[in-house]
This record gives sequence, C-alpha cells and structure tokens, in this order.
Amino acid sequence: MSQVTLKDIASILGVSVTTVSKALKDYPDISDDTKHAVKLLAEKLNYKPNIHAVTLRSNQSKTIGVILPKVDHQFFAETITGIISEANIHGYQVIVLFSDESMAMEEKQVDLLLEKRVDGILMSLANETNRYDHLHKVVKNQVPLVLFDKITRQVNCSKVIIDDEKAASKAVEHLIKTGCRKIALFGGPKFPSNYNSRLKGYTKALEKHGITPDESLVYICEDLSIAEGRENAKELLQAHPDTDAIFCITDHIALGAISYLNDANISIPDQISVMGFSNWLITPYIKPHLSTVDQPSVQIGKESASLLIDEIHRKNKKLPVEFYEIKLQTHLVLRETTKAIVTSK
Amino acid sequence: MSQVTLKDIASILGVSVTTVSKALKDYPDISDDTKHAVKLLAEKLNYKPNIHAVTLRSNQSKTIGVILPKVDHQFFAETITGIISEANIHGYQVIVLFSDESMAMEEKQVDLLLEKRVDGILMSLANETNRYDHLHKVVKNQVPLVLFDKITRQVNCSKVIIDDEKAASKAVEHLIKTGCRKIALFGGPKFPSNYNSRLKGYTKALEKHGITPDESLVYICEDLSIAEGRENAKELLQAHPDTDAIFCITDHIALGAISYLNDANISIPDQISVMGFSNWLITPYIKPHLSTVDQPSVQIGKESASLLIDEIHRKNKKLPVEFYEIKLQTHLVLRETTKAIVTSK
Repeated sequence: MSQVTLKDIASILGVSVTTVSKALKDYPDISDDTKHAVKLLAEKLNYKPNIHAVTLRSNQSKTIGVILPKVDHQFFAETITGIISEANIHGYQVIVLFSDESMAMEEKQVDLLLEKRVDGILMSLANETNRYDHLHKVVKNQVPLVLFDKITRQVNCSKVIIDDEKAASKAVEHLIKTGCRKIALFGGPKFPSNYNSRLKGYTKALEKHGITPDESLVYICEDLSIAEGRENAKELLQAHPDTDAIFCITDHIALGAISYLNDANISIPDQISVMGFSNWLITPYIKPHLSTVDQPSVQIGKESASLLIDEIHRKNKKLPVEFYEIKLQTHLVLRETTKAIVTSK
Repeated sequence: MSQVTLKDIASILGVSVTTVSKALKDYPDISDDTKHAVKLLAEKLNYKPNIHAVTLRSNQSKTIGVILPKVDHQFFAETITGIISEANIHGYQVIVLFSDESMAMEEKQVDLLLEKRVDGILMSLANETNRYDHLHKVVKNQVPLVLFDKITRQVNCSKVIIDDEKAASKAVEHLIKTGCRKIALFGGPKFPSNYNSRLKGYTKALEKHGITPDESLVYICEDLSIAEGRENAKELLQAHPDTDAIFCITDHIALGAISYLNDANISIPDQISVMGFSNWLITPYIKPHLSTVDQPSVQIGKESASLLIDEIHRKNKKLPVEFYEIKLQTHLVLRETTKAIVTSK
C-alpha cells in the first residue's frame, strides 16, 4: 500500500472523510469511540497528514530556503549551523540548495524555492552574479529575502555582512606595524562586493601609512582556491623576491601560499608574513599556524535567519516591513605566520 | 498583493478558474484571444503555478531528500556534488538536511521528508544512530531509500559503500612494507559500521604480516576531530615513544596528529609515518603532504542518486524493486608522510 490518505481510513471504518479529519484534530462533535478508532487505524497504517494539502490551506510552509554558492566551504558550513539553530528555535525547517558559484544555477534555485512556496529565502550570492532580476522577482513576489556575506545593494531587502573594508584594513595595518612594507594582496573576483571592499581596505591601510599601493603586487584568485594561492605565491616571489608580506582574502588562498613557501624553504614569517581571512577550522593546525581575521560565521547565520523570520512574521500580521543592514564585528587572530609588532623607541 | 492565484486571474478577466487553467495549458477548446489575455496577465502578475496543488494531483514532487550527518565535511561536500549532478540529469531537485551526528535529529529529519512527500531519500547515518525504526518507517511507507557511506545492514534497502576493510588493510600493509612495525590506529566510534570495518582491516593486515595487534596502540576519536587527533598523538608518544606509524581513519584526525608531531619536532616520516583516509582537498597542501586513501566521494554520490532514481522509476511503473549493495574501489595516494617501500635483497 502506498501512502495512506484520509479517504483510505474513512472507507475502512465506513465513516466520512470529514469525520476522520475532525477525529484526528479532536473536534468535540466526534465521539470518543470514533476518535479512538480513527487514531488507532491512522497509527497502524502509518498515516501522515499530507503537508501539501495543509500548505494549500494555511498558505504557510514553515520552511526557509537557503541558497549557498558553495558546498565545500567551512564558512558556509558554519553559517548553515547558525541558520539551522535559529530556525529551529522558531519552528522553521531549513532546506539548503547550492548555486555552485553559477548565476544560471542561482536563478534556477530561486525559481524552485518560489515554486515550492517557502516562507522566506536566505541567500549568499554566487561570484558570477552581476545581474539581479531573479532577486527583484523574489521581492516582487513578496517573499521575504535576506542576503548575507556576498550581497548586492541593488536589491531592496535586509542584509547581514561584516565590515569587510575595515577588517581588511586592520589586518594590513597589523602587517605594517610588524615592519612589513612590500605587502602583496591575493584578492578575489570583482563580484560580489565583499572582495572589492577587502581590496579597498588594503589600499587605504597602505595609504594611511604612507605606502604607495603597487598594482603589480595585487593578484586575483578567480576561484579563491588553494591551488591559485600556491601558483600566485610562486609567481609573486619570482617577480618580486623582496615581498615581505602577503594578505590573502581567504584562508584557502593563504593555505596555498603557505604550501608553496614551505616547499620552497622560504621562512614564514621571517622572510615573508602571511595573513588569511575567515579563521577556517584548520588554520590553527597547519604549519606555521595561520594568523587570520575571524569572521563570526555562526552569528552571521543566526542574525540572517532571525531577520528573515521576523520579516515573515510581520508580513503574516500585515505589519509594515523595514529593511536593515547589519554589520557584524571581526577580530584579528594572531598566530605564527605574522611577526610581533615593532615597538618604536 | 501576495502570490497570485488562478482565481485572481479569473476574477480580473471575468472568466472561470477552469478557463484560466485550460488557457495556461493551451487546451484547444479555449480561444486564442482568451489564451493571449490570460497568459499576458499571468506574466504581468508574476503568476507561479502552485507546486503543492500540482503535487497533490500527480503524487510526484520530483524532489530527492538527502540527510547528511555533518555540514562541515569535505567528503559529504563532494558526495552532495555527485548527488546533485546525477539528480539534475534526471530532472530531480535536491534538498539537503543535516542530522548533526544526532540520532534524534535524524529521526526528525526523516519525519520532515516523509511529510514533505519527497520521491526518495538518500542518507548517511549519524555516528550516534544505533536503532533503525525511523529507517524501517521509510521502507514501510514505500518511499525509496538508499544508504551510503555510513550505513546499516539491518535495513532492507540499497547501499553504496567502499570496501572499508580492504582499504584499511591495504593502507596498513603499505606501512608494513615501508618497514613500520609498531603501528598505532586512531579509530572512530563503534557506530556506524565503516569505522569498525577499518579497524578490522588494520587488525587483519597486522596479523597477515605476523605482527600481534596491541590494543594499547588503538585510540578512539569519538568526534573524529582534528583536536582529538592532536591530543591522541601526544598521549600515544608519551605512552609509546617507539611507535613508528599512525594509521588515522580520517584525514581530519591525521591533520591533528601531524600538527602535534610538527610542533614537537618529531620528524615525519623518518621517526613516525602518518597515513590518513579520504583524500581531503587540503591533504596535498599541508606539511608534510599527507599520504592517504582516496575515497571516490563524488562517485559515491552519483551512484547513490542513480540507484535511488532508478528505484523511484521502477516503483512508479509498479515494477518489482531489487536492492543492491555497491562497493566502490579506493586507492592509496602516497605523498610525503610515509616512507618508500623497503625492497628485500
């Protein structure tokens, strides 16, 4: 027997579907005997209320859809953890979909979530995404939307980010204070905006300390991969052997750079300092232990889910909805790949 | 205006809901003018067919549910990649849920997927799971189920695994052939069965080469975490400073062990060899580069999805369903944490 329906229970017991439905919901106009018989049979047959039917009636699925750009990224793993824990508190289930950094796939996943009529959508954009019609569609459909981490300001919705520019600026200033002067940047693609912000922070920190930014020290890692960090470190050291620091905008890139420096027997941090970004779980275990910028990834997930659920509730109560842009604090985690601060005499 | 319904379109145009529905589906008994008017308005209002209503009719959601034990594990990230690529080929969408290695959460997620009436379920079990009522329930509900990687043989369904015993045995035999004799095992919890199989493979390889297994060389990493690998390496070297190899049943554990050995200036592999398991993406980049067992994780995902979709199709056509246990091949990836094979003279 395939999945059991109210009709099956009704026909076995010789009562109406309405009676079965009311009995399962403990309506007072149904006798205790009937309730008992219906519930017993429902249990015996493993009856599950058809959630689709329920959804049609209540117009609420109690489900949040999350679209993430990457499967295999610690930052997103931690963000999901935060989203799920916040959603569970409010009785929402979480469905996760992946765009694989592709705008076409992202558009498809948005359509799927709209078709599935989730109550709200949380998204971190694919690196490829540079048009936002699919996001405008979500807003137009009045489905609450919150963007986090990789966002665009061209869509009118709530956003949760860190202050990327400030975080990058602080990291580079720290390198300068340890005596570094020729500081390379291993950056990311132009979109989304957070990589650009980190580049801005790098440039501003240099300028603040009277160092002229040198474009030939900026390398772009299109895939933000470990392999690119490794290759770029090799190229950098061939072109600029006197480089004294590398600021990497992700820990993945930093791991690749360190891997090359280790294999080439270039001493970290004596000859060259390395600073990462995100505080990936492996960073305290690699050799040397990586200095990095801690991103509050679990908190980003929690804040995003909390904003979204609040918006869903306000929408359901037909209250006016306001949009927020929340910036969370980061902090430097100093380990072995950076030197001590040079104190002025 | 919230999400637009057929009724909204019908009342704006002054026609029946049936006419709107038929017009959208190009029924021949509807005039071209009406079709044009309906389609134009539907487009203008951003009308989306209610997938829940469709599901009620066709009894198929074209959605596969996946329950994974961990968010932050490269192996599962790669498995999802394989699942999604195979599912997309067959027009299935993939929804991912997480049990966080908790049996209670796993039971909850199974219930959610049954309620959501997904067409089939793919699962890798939580380490905690040692009862299987929730899996039997899936089978009883005639929802196709395929277990992969962390499985139980107590449930009658298809399974996709690697030959854990053989893979572990080959890894340990390699260590023996490089001259190692006092080989420690950093193992995992008792459930699910694949950690036990790796322990068996370790024991058999030792016995085959005339080495008596020594229980004091077996350490259990309950969380399979990097931190546990590190702590156990420290304890092991205090208790047995003459250990000449560690076989770790995950690369995470191996990374922790290597981190301790590096910090303690114990030379790898001269003083002690380290072998991991799974070929995690960071393993070629850590110092020294980790020798490990390559698990075909993307292929595991593809095979599992393919078996599941095949079962869904057979069920829909009311054909008899057979269950398969597929064992995929692994191979050794030798890098820098193990020595060269000692050739006999």
